[in-house]
Amino acid sequence: MDENCIFCKIISGEIPSELIYKDDVCVAFNDISPQAPTHILVIPREHFASLNEAKDGHKEILGHLMLKTAAIAEEKGIADQGYRVVINTNENGGQTVFHLHIHLLGGRQFIFPPG
Amino acid sequence: MDENCIFCKIISGEIPSELIYKDDVCVAFNDISPQAPTHILVIPREHFASLNEAKDGHKEILGHLMLKTAAIAEEKGIADQGYRVVINTNENGGQTVFHLHIHLLGGRQFIFPPG
Repeated sequence: MDENCIFCKIISGEIPSELIYKDDVCVAFNDISPQAPTHILVIPREHFASLNEAKDGHKEILGHLMLKTAAIAEEKGIADQGYRVVINTNENGGQTVFHLHIHLLGGRQFIFPPG
Repeated sequence: MDENCIFCKIISGEIPSELIYKDDVCVAFNDISPQAPTHILVIPREHFASLNEAKDGHKEILGHLMLKTAAIAEEKGIADQGYRVVINTNENGGQTVFHLHIHLLGGRQFIFPPG
């Protein structure tokens, strides 16, 4: 845990969130500034800042995050119509919280380019 | 291999591409309709249509794809400034080719919402 990380504080419960899912590896909760009818963040319990910090040892965590993101889309009823998954890294990517997080967005049509 | 899949034909070499990276699990190549100075697609050799079709057995493949996407960002010199990773699923997501693929976009600022 990084004591200065808002997402670590959400994981610990120090900061409240609208929890969607949790297990031993990850936590999912509603984005506080939703950009679509469904906008959920899926994050690893292990703190690492971004994909740039992902190492070989994170492969299983990353695979788990992707599978759970897809499972949550199914659970939320957005899988068939479709959804967009986005991971932002650093400034050009538009990353604002430096704890790796997957945006799961659904419930409306998404255009291309993606931002 | 799905005989009607354009990405399977890129993997096999039947359709040419600007190859960026390949290994036993995945292939990466330039998007033919780039939406940013760097726009690379990273795809698994195994054909499955989308994240909706990803099963528990795909966890290692998905983790591998994410790690290699990050490694390619580093190799292409876009990691520090940042990049956006996007996976589209079905119609609302804007998916156009039904072989799972990760968009790696960099070299410019990306806005939010992501499409």
